This record gives sequence, structure tokens and C-alpha cells, in this order.
Amino acid sequence: MKISARNVLKGKVVSVDKGATTAHVKIEIAPGQVVTASITNESVDALKLTLGSDAYAVVKASDVMVAVD
Amino acid sequence: MKISARNVLKGKVVSVDKGATTAHVKIEIAPGQVVTASITNESVDALKLTLGSDAYAVVKASDVMVAVD
Amino acid sequence: MKISARNVLKGKVVSVDKGATTAHVKIEIAPGQVVTASITNESVDALKLTLGSDAYAVVKASDVMVAVD
Amino acid sequence: MKISARNVLKGKVVSVDKGATTAHVKIEIAPGQVVTASITNESVDALKLTLGSDAYAVVKASDVMVAVD
Amino acid sequence: MKISARNVLKGKVVSVDKGATTAHVKIEIAPGQVVTASITNESVDALKLTLGSDAYAVVKASDVMVAVD
Amino acid sequence: MKISARNVLKGKVVSVDKGATTAHVKIEIAPGQVVTASITNESVDALKLTLGSDAYAVVKASDVMVAVD
Repeated sequence: MKISARNVLKGKVVSVDKGATTAHVKIEIAPGQVVTASITNESVDALKLTLGSDAYAVVKASDVMVAVD
Repeated sequence: MKISARNVLKGKVVSVDKGATTAHVKIEIAPGQVVTASITNESVDALKLTLGSDAYAVVKASDVMVAVD
Repeated sequence: MKISARNVLKGKVVSVDKGATTAHVKIEIAPGQVVTASITNESVDALKLTLGSDAYAVVKASDVMVAVD
Repeated sequence: MKISARNVLKGKVVSVDKGATTAHVKIEIAPGQVVTASITNESVDALKLTLGSDAYAVVKASDVMVAVD
Repeated sequence: MKISARNVLKGKVVSVDKGATTAHVKIEIAPGQVVTASITNESVDALKLTLGSDAYAVVKASDVMVAVD
Repeated sequence: MKISARNVLKGKVVSVDKGATTAHVKIEIAPGQVVTASITNESVDALKLTLGSDAYAVVKASDVMVAVD
């Protein structure tokens, strides 16, 4: 499957924290750069995400903001 | 200002493409890893974004998906 | 690629309207049920979306609201 | 109330799963096509959502992605 | 129609700026507090939004971030 | 830090409700106008949000919808 989302960042899962319905998954996409995803527990199971899994952080361009100092 | 968004990725602006109301800004956050943001033209002006600007790509955790091969 | 987004609705592209930077793509996911996506022109090209293409409308669960009459 | 969100898909609630603060609600919008919404528990109560309720899944066009095989 | 979005802020339209496909609509929700919405041109027409229209700015709780100085 | 998000509404925190992984924070941005944010527990801690804190509700323009009666 190929998706329209412009941002597909390859990395490795470095933490999975399941809550009651919502999980937080952290993916290291470059040395020292970690992206946090808040997804359903259901997705964690469906994708079999565990520590060390190869995974992509996927973000639609319209969900990216820009900031400057 | 400190923001709740869990993802604040430092980089450099590598392209700014203004449309009629919406602009696409690309930020290189690691060698070869470019993030595309779709923001208002108004924001591009307010933040004085130009090629080579230091900038952050900011994404709320609930807007990050995870994918696997 | 398998994605965490809980909503992947199969259908056919029934219209593609490119603007200056942002395109609107309509996908019929059931008889008479059409979903509108606002994506980058760049994605329309990358996915080669045209009238009649098979395509999926993909939505993260946290972007779905519920309404009642 | 009439809303700007381009996607208002009519259906029936087929599951409600409340977590600590966030609930997952599934709405069948066509035979076999189920949409999952992640909303606040507070909204589930305010809208009195239960199994079998008539409900709409509402999605802003800018939150819809497109994918192809 | 009653919606799950927790934030429904009443105000008046103070500007409508249509682009090629995407419009920016500004709604004053309190004296001096203006909210900007980026919506489709199609929605501007469907809702007949013009200067001075009574309107609500609607935002899902999961799309609100918090910042501190 | 200056952010591209067009909506930065100043107010005071009037409630903080932490769940298993996700918290709901309410900010009063004008007399009687309260905005609800659904953010990670992690952010609540990082920003030291408590009752009475000065805080901003921050929303990207593309996440604001418009509704009319």
C-alpha cells in the first residue's frame, strides 16, 4: 500500500506504553531523534509492535506545524 | 513558549512553496530525512521562513501513525 | 505497508480537483457514499490518482468525530 | 447545526468501549464497512451513544488520506 | 445535529479568504480573540459564510495543544 | 519559540484530568468560554500544568471547522 501522507520516517520502536484504550509508541527515526505516536491499543496488536520492531512514523503534511526560536 | 506537542524536530528549511492560501514547507531534520508541512501562507510570512532558516517541525503525538512493512 | 490508522475504506476515485498546492480527491466508498480528501498536489501525482482509480480513504481514529441528530 | 466537515457518514453504533478518559466508538456506515472514532468519554455521555444508536461519523477533509495498492 | 467535538465556540465571521481550493475563515469568538479556520471553498459556499455571519469555530479536543510561557 | 499554528488563545487552566495515558485539560480563554485539550499525561508533567496555571490553547488552522445554525 502506498499512502498520500508526505511524511513516512523509517525507524525502530524504542517504547510501547499501552493505556486503557490508547497507547504511546516511540520510534527512533535518527540517532537521538525520537517520534511519539498516540495510537489505539488495537493498532499496537494488529501491527505486532514491540521493542526493536522496524517501523515507520507516518504523518500527513497538514498535521505538521513549523516553529522558529 | 513551551508546547505540549511531543514531537519537535530541529532542522533547516529546504523549500518553501506558497500557493493561493496554503504553503508547503520542507524541513530537513536529519541527513536525507525531510519533513513536509502544509501551513498557511500567513504563517510563512509571520515566521519569516526562507531557504536555509533554522526551524522545527512540530507534530502532536495524536497525529502520528505507525506503519510496518 | 500496514498502517495503524483504523479506517481504511476501499473505493473508486470519482473526482480529482487540483488547486495551487492542495487538491481535493473524492472517493466513492459505497453506493452514494463519497468521501472527500484534501491532500497535496504532490501526492496526487505520486499516487497517479485519476478518475476511476481504485483507492482507499484512510483516516486515523482520533480524527473521527461522532454526531447525532 | 450544519458543519463545514465534508464527510458526514450516516450509520449505526456497533460498539462503545470506554477507557480511562478516551473511548472508541465503532459505527457501521455501510454493510461490512465500520468506522472507528476515538473520542472523549465525556462526548459518549453527552451524545448518549449506545449500541444501536443512529449516528454519523464526521471527518474533516484535511484529515483524510488516500492510499493505493 | 449534536457533535462529539468538545469545542464549539460561538462568534461572528470577520473575514473569508478563498484560495484555489482552500479558504481561510476568521471568526471572532470574544472581543479581540479571533480563530482562523482553514476549510474547503466548497464548505464556504455550502454554509453561505460571509462577513458578519453568526458561526461557530469547532475543534476536536485531540486537536488542541497546550503551551506555557 | 514562535509557532505556525494560527490559533494561540491565552487563558487559565480550570481542570486537569489524567487518564491511563491521555489527559484532558480545560483552559478558560474568555469568561464562560472553556477549551478542552486532549494531550498526553507526559505533556501535563513536562509543562507542569495545574489548576490556575496560565496557559495557551494552541490549534492549527487546518484543525478548525466552522458550523452554522
